[in-house]
Amino acid sequence: MTEAVTIADIDAAALRLKGHVRRTPLLNSPFLDEIAGRRVWIKAECLQHTGSFKYRGAWSAISGIAEAARKRGVIAFSSGNHAQGVALAARQHGAACVIIMPSDAPALKIANTRALGAEVVLYDRANEDRDAIGAAMAEARGLSLIKPFDAPLVIAGQASCGLEIAEQAAKRGIKSAQVLTCCGGGGLTSGIALALEARAPDMTVRPVEPQGFDDVARSLQAGRIERNPALTGSICDAIITPQPGDLTFPILKRLCGAGLAVSDQEALRAMALALLRLKIVIEPGGAVALAAALFHGDALEGEDVIAVASGGNADPEMMTRALETLGA
Amino acid sequence: MTEAVTIADIDAAALRLKGHVRRTPLLNSPFLDEIAGRRVWIKAECLQHTGSFKYRGAWSAISGIAEAARKRGVIAFSSGNHAQGVALAARQHGAACVIIMPSDAPALKIANTRALGAEVVLYDRANEDRDAIGAAMAEARGLSLIKPFDAPLVIAGQASCGLEIAEQAAKRGIKSAQVLTCCGGGGLTSGIALALEARAPDMTVRPVEPQGFDDVARSLQAGRIERNPALTGSICDAIITPQPGDLTFPILKRLCGAGLAVSDQEALRAMALALLRLKIVIEPGGAVALAAALFHGDALEGEDVIAVASGGNADPEMMTRALETLGA
Repeated sequence: MTEAVTIADIDAAALRLKGHVRRTPLLNSPFLDEIAGRRVWIKAECLQHTGSFKYRGAWSAISGIAEAARKRGVIAFSSGNHAQGVALAARQHGAACVIIMPSDAPALKIANTRALGAEVVLYDRANEDRDAIGAAMAEARGLSLIKPFDAPLVIAGQASCGLEIAEQAAKRGIKSAQVLTCCGGGGLTSGIALALEARAPDMTVRPVEPQGFDDVARSLQAGRIERNPALTGSICDAIITPQPGDLTFPILKRLCGAGLAVSDQEALRAMALALLRLKIVIEPGGAVALAAALFHGDALEGEDVIAVASGGNADPEMMTRALETLGA
Repeated sequence: MTEAVTIADIDAAALRLKGHVRRTPLLNSPFLDEIAGRRVWIKAECLQHTGSFKYRGAWSAISGIAEAARKRGVIAFSSGNHAQGVALAARQHGAACVIIMPSDAPALKIANTRALGAEVVLYDRANEDRDAIGAAMAEARGLSLIKPFDAPLVIAGQASCGLEIAEQAAKRGIKSAQVLTCCGGGGLTSGIALALEARAPDMTVRPVEPQGFDDVARSLQAGRIERNPALTGSICDAIITPQPGDLTFPILKRLCGAGLAVSDQEALRAMALALLRLKIVIEPGGAVALAAALFHGDALEGEDVIAVASGGNADPEMMTRALETLGA
């Protein structure tokens, strides 16, 4: 496979995913339409296995490598949604799985990843080199690295979400719409954009990020990759990455409309409204697209908008905090 | 239509519902399987329009009456999920809709029902006769009463949930399983039991109720209708009814296994685990089936159990209370 991702690659990934991935529902609520002033459709990817779209890319990558490599096992660097997606997809393939995590990652995330069958290797953020540890283990055991976004098989897997959006929107008679995606490194956003280019060309993808961490929006505006000034300071941690990927950015640049940015408070309020009106849990980073649909309508166009709710791995404290935004 | 509900009635209801009802997903989580000690499948009916299965029966009933009657409009008595289901289904049919509610119903529920297009008529619980008010309005305007459970068209509509369960289970290779249903008047439970009798005869429905309000379990044991001693005192208010219905009970008696009862605390904990592991909101009354699957495994049989999460209309305070059960 070359570095380009074609619709044939995406269809092939969707075929491998069939029967394993959940076809997540496209939800709506008259109460949210009222707030947004247009029809809002929510692609509830928080209901995917392991609670986020990451399972799609992980399954695509693990099923797409050669069998001999798969038998040796896979490795990933992540303390979050990517870790859980890779761990479960690896276990379901009978492949050994090593996840490299910082030793100060939340105990629950470490426990969850282990419970999904992965061997978790902890490293000391201050004194150890994560990449060196991973490279040494990969070398010694012949493990294949599953990157979080900047890899063709991963992008093709995330694109399966876009194929579903195209089909589900068509069933509802929606041909033209802006599709808002929660955007970190751009794997989900570029995948969806490629799928829609082929199957729903009148739709436009608009990446959404947390305010102050809008590297993709700024990169799109500048026409070249821009970095975030910091990597901490937002509750939307799941989608904060240093910069768009080398593979994903050219796709975003070619296909996406302007980026949007929302505040942490808006993300929390979108989480709360999703709990109340859609009966789904979204994590802050997975709620930015819905927040843009609800609270940044002036920057959007059209009668219908589709917001991808990319993940739901919020801890109980964050859910409680979101619910507090509904108080009088 | 006679008082009996046949599989032909159920298929006809499903055909009327097609394209309107949401086909809700059948979810699972390895973390819940671990707690239950078997595979647990959750039919996420909380993701149905208006947040509960009630929309199915409401749509079935409104679409199933004669056009002339539909044009005159419908009426229902409810302050809860049935009210919202009837209100939305009526609006979508272009039918006028009157909902009779006690004047002390929560303001949010009244507002929600009005927002779905219904004319809400409030009555004073202490000094007014609800049935007399409803009968007078129905008479004056020729409105058709949509009963909450004891009506063939309603039972046939709820049964569409059972048809989906049969298909979704078969796709996963599950032929035999106990199907746990949250049970109030028995509309959902009898409908699912009828659908499974025809389409998945190796499955057995087990009604689940709140402890102290287990009229269905006691009625099944006694072989005749028994009443609840009280109608308040549980957070599972959505499924507390005086007694099983005259139409539903014979169906339950013929087709269901023994009933189960769970505590309010178990329902809250099941709600919390659904938020954390499935990313869905269930209300207490909609969580009793999952609670039985998770915490009453000794009373169950088989490798797979299916729990219907019948509704998700929990208010923020109840969600917060559920999340508190996860604390250290």
